[in-house]
Amino acid sequence: MIDPMTLHGIIPPLCTPLLPDGELDPASARRLVEFQISAGVHGLFVLGSTGEQAALSAEQRAAMLETTIAANAGRVPILAGIFDTSTRRCIENARMAQAAGAEALVLAPTYYYRAGQHELLDLFRAVRSAVDLPLLAYDVPGAVNVKLDAATVTTLAEEGVICGIKDSSGVVEGFREVLMRTRHLPFRAFTGSELIVDACLHMGAHGSVPGLANVFPQAYVDLYTHACAGDWAAASAIQERLLACFRALITQGDPAYSASASALGGFKMGLKVQGVIAHTTVAAPLHSFTPAEEERVAAVMQRYGLFTAG
Amino acid sequence: MIDPMTLHGIIPPLCTPLLPDGELDPASARRLVEFQISAGVHGLFVLGSTGEQAALSAEQRAAMLETTIAANAGRVPILAGIFDTSTRRCIENARMAQAAGAEALVLAPTYYYRAGQHELLDLFRAVRSAVDLPLLAYDVPGAVNVKLDAATVTTLAEEGVICGIKDSSGVVEGFREVLMRTRHLPFRAFTGSELIVDACLHMGAHGSVPGLANVFPQAYVDLYTHACAGDWAAASAIQERLLACFRALITQGDPAYSASASALGGFKMGLKVQGVIAHTTVAAPLHSFTPAEEERVAAVMQRYGLFTAG
Amino acid sequence: MIDPMTLHGIIPPLCTPLLPDGELDPASARRLVEFQISAGVHGLFVLGSTGEQAALSAEQRAAMLETTIAANAGRVPILAGIFDTSTRRCIENARMAQAAGAEALVLAPTYYYRAGQHELLDLFRAVRSAVDLPLLAYDVPGAVNVKLDAATVTTLAEEGVICGIKDSSGVVEGFREVLMRTRHLPFRAFTGSELIVDACLHMGAHGSVPGLANVFPQAYVDLYTHACAGDWAAASAIQERLLACFRALITQGDPAYSASASALGGFKMGLKVQGVIAHTTVAAPLHSFTPAEEERVAAVMQRYGLFTAG
Amino acid sequence: MIDPMTLHGIIPPLCTPLLPDGELDPASARRLVEFQISAGVHGLFVLGSTGEQAALSAEQRAAMLETTIAANAGRVPILAGIFDTSTRRCIENARMAQAAGAEALVLAPTYYYRAGQHELLDLFRAVRSAVDLPLLAYDVPGAVNVKLDAATVTTLAEEGVICGIKDSSGVVEGFREVLMRTRHLPFRAFTGSELIVDACLHMGAHGSVPGLANVFPQAYVDLYTHACAGDWAAASAIQERLLACFRALITQGDPAYSASASALGGFKMGLKVQGVIAHTTVAAPLHSFTPAEEERVAAVMQRYGLFTAG
Repeated sequence: MIDPMTLHGIIPPLCTPLLPDGELDPASARRLVEFQISAGVHGLFVLGSTGEQAALSAEQRAAMLETTIAANAGRVPILAGIFDTSTRRCIENARMAQAAGAEALVLAPTYYYRAGQHELLDLFRAVRSAVDLPLLAYDVPGAVNVKLDAATVTTLAEEGVICGIKDSSGVVEGFREVLMRTRHLPFRAFTGSELIVDACLHMGAHGSVPGLANVFPQAYVDLYTHACAGDWAAASAIQERLLACFRALITQGDPAYSASASALGGFKMGLKVQGVIAHTTVAAPLHSFTPAEEERVAAVMQRYGLFTAG
Repeated sequence: MIDPMTLHGIIPPLCTPLLPDGELDPASARRLVEFQISAGVHGLFVLGSTGEQAALSAEQRAAMLETTIAANAGRVPILAGIFDTSTRRCIENARMAQAAGAEALVLAPTYYYRAGQHELLDLFRAVRSAVDLPLLAYDVPGAVNVKLDAATVTTLAEEGVICGIKDSSGVVEGFREVLMRTRHLPFRAFTGSELIVDACLHMGAHGSVPGLANVFPQAYVDLYTHACAGDWAAASAIQERLLACFRALITQGDPAYSASASALGGFKMGLKVQGVIAHTTVAAPLHSFTPAEEERVAAVMQRYGLFTAG
Repeated sequence: MIDPMTLHGIIPPLCTPLLPDGELDPASARRLVEFQISAGVHGLFVLGSTGEQAALSAEQRAAMLETTIAANAGRVPILAGIFDTSTRRCIENARMAQAAGAEALVLAPTYYYRAGQHELLDLFRAVRSAVDLPLLAYDVPGAVNVKLDAATVTTLAEEGVICGIKDSSGVVEGFREVLMRTRHLPFRAFTGSELIVDACLHMGAHGSVPGLANVFPQAYVDLYTHACAGDWAAASAIQERLLACFRALITQGDPAYSASASALGGFKMGLKVQGVIAHTTVAAPLHSFTPAEEERVAAVMQRYGLFTAG
Repeated sequence: MIDPMTLHGIIPPLCTPLLPDGELDPASARRLVEFQISAGVHGLFVLGSTGEQAALSAEQRAAMLETTIAANAGRVPILAGIFDTSTRRCIENARMAQAAGAEALVLAPTYYYRAGQHELLDLFRAVRSAVDLPLLAYDVPGAVNVKLDAATVTTLAEEGVICGIKDSSGVVEGFREVLMRTRHLPFRAFTGSELIVDACLHMGAHGSVPGLANVFPQAYVDLYTHACAGDWAAASAIQERLLACFRALITQGDPAYSASASALGGFKMGLKVQGVIAHTTVAAPLHSFTPAEEERVAAVMQRYGLFTAG
């Protein structure tokens, strides 16, 4: 079992490459793993929001996780998303992930029904008791409608139930409060706010889980390396370039689609243009880019010189 | 196959009775079906939000549906909830429901990822094409974060993709607009707004799918019967009594828990007090009533004379 | 002083007619009063949300109120909106309204800063103590960000602080709860939900304050008359026609503008087309219709035969 | 007229000290100005959200502004909040502020009615044309319900309509985008996110307008000085201490009151304990601390050693 206190750096939440019929595309998944590890990422987070975890079937989840773990061949730590709609289903996912060889689990609040903070304490405790793997919390209120309070996170950290967090809440003050209140504990805090990674590292974050790193892993690794070396100007310059790339990728999708959907499509297009994955298909009913949309995004990427960002 | 144009009246979204360990309690489920049909309900909606569909495992969903269908023995139409996080998963649920013998399907927008209206058109069309059963839309933005626009519903109705709706949006004006725009079509509109059923019937709704009817099926059937007979004063008197009951049931749970959770627990307590189901357990992490909480709710029910509401 | 228990029926929240430079257009205001009273409305609500109260200067508010009161010449009761951003400012507005001759006051929660329910109790008590006129609560969370809880309304009604409510919350269940809990009190409940007035009257509301009645006062008066006579089918038929008119009026404005803005412009256009007011100007920065937009709305009104709705 | 490009550093949004009857307390206001300037602040923002601008009467606004300007005696630049519910009212406020001697104006989107982005462009252009003073935008969607899009801010900056922004949106990514897109322009960007000032300075912000600086001006000035000197560790250490102070001050108020209300009261209590202002009164209906609540906050401040934070 890995020592979770060694988790750090850039841990991209991997896209799950799909074939046009919606089935997993294992060849693309293997290339994606290689693309990431070649760029020097410090870990891989499989089956996150960017990985379409919620939309995949149990079989697809297992297949993606197993493919990734095999391709990784022990080179970097593998974290697996196990969030779902009930404690029971989260535990089932956790067992599957453990069986597949995941080294740490990432759990968000249950969704559809809105859980209260006491219920969330119960959830995390129950999952941690059921499966003996390091557990990280995932704060993603935009998807699950519930924010993990700093007090809830701190309680779980003090109890040893969770050993870290991925904060995609967008509330930087709350992330900072968690950082301050867990500094004395064995706890690793990662930001999911991909456009302010430098600022979060500056506050003491141990790393980031940025969706955009699917497309630009080298840039994020460089950002992290500069930050560790104290060269914040260089880190910020990369971050600003990535922010511009992000806006360009996202807004090429039809603004009528939801932000998450167009981000997913944009990430996949950014990977397809670089020859990493074969198709931009996302799980229906979210809209997969048409050839015309693909061309538009490719043109934007070329105009902005996005290939050279990494 | 039933003629969906015969759907009408009170179609309670059945609670899914659970044992204390979270497994299905089939004996309680059978008693619940009997309790409902004895009261004269006009159909049963299994695996809705009140039925904890989103929280159950695939096996539990199938077991609850099969148990209900067997207990019903063809007496009233059975509708099955099939909503989930992707088109593929919704279709899997639909096939399971068809195999189990459901006579109509009820589909909400996919959740976790927020779909746009065009994506929802695609979703409903894809599910309807895949499984040849009458399909009703379920508008429940409080859970899935997306509202079905009146234009989307009308388009799907005109195409013959959906033959009805359960509107739990809380936006009565929108429901009315759907009623007006579908009146010339083979379309059945049910309200999920359990506290204004009389008003919705008055506007032309064909019936209701009220969660509270789990506890008071006779009262809702009486309400509907009075409304059909044009005795609106009697219908309203029952509705007002039910509103008072609802508030009493809900607010006895810890207000720190979410409304849906305390409603689920309250409904199950209302059934346990009447001897219909054996346990008030809800799927974790939502909070199941403690014995002390059960006593408090029972006392309130007695104080308000809730037993005699039916 | 009027007996507030005589308040009933259709009490339109008057548009405030403006000249192109943003000043009050008193001639149009007088014609509007005449148009309403000729149609048989049962009262006039000046300086509501539809009356642009929040946007007007103190001088404009006083001028509109005085103009209306003079034109009314005692024929129907005049209610005045006095809502503002602090207790002190609400009381100043109340004193102005009393001096101008208003017969009842309408007060919403203070806005910009979000008040809690205890603070709202204090607000209503302070205003009622300061100015000896009947006071109605105005529940409009879409504008002020705070909902008046049914418990708060009931407490104020029981204390005799308020003698009625205009409910524009959109939460019909909450309005019904207020109706039920105030039935034994001297209290008058009006709905601001202009598209379900028949349903609210059916539940026991004493009348309505529908913005759309600016344009179609006769239709709303007829609706009310039919409802009082128990001819609900006739009432509903009118309500449905008004709903169709509303959608047509609203959606002709640029959907990029806020609903309230386009509704204000649509109402004014509906009045201009009928020769009642001279200009469609709304208080900047909300967008006033261009001549091209005016033409588009006029064409729609003609196509839908909206002139004959009254 | 000041050169707005010289605006920088810590510009506290001054509390408006009130007497128990709600009238301005000029003696306290003068002490507050002296307290701030002695601490080395680089400007003063009068009549912001923290200054209760929206709740004050026109006379109170003018009196507070004039008192501050007189006490300041030209030592630091004075910015005045002029936001209100319509273009006309904002212009009236702007003229008052200019007459009183303000050197720059701060304008938020109009509130109560929700303006669209095009309407906001019109608003800012109209105000800037009407009053010849430097104009800063104020992004505070939590109060006014509308977010200033980065595109709107950039357009206004490019047109020379605005020369800066106070960003209290809580969306750090959006603030960063504004920073990036206005870097080539004469434009000054200040953050209102008082708990991450160091991070925002690190991204290139020219300063901050932190409400908490009312209580701890020296600490914020030190934070800024350290940041300018490149001693980010020292800056962050102060920021973290201030975050802990903030939580302590806020949560001592009754959590049932709104955050803004309890923050206002907490700030005033922090000033009273230090002998700067005489009363903790806030404009009704927001709750003013009772003596018991004051004691609780004072005890917390002593326990946390908050006096020595500066």
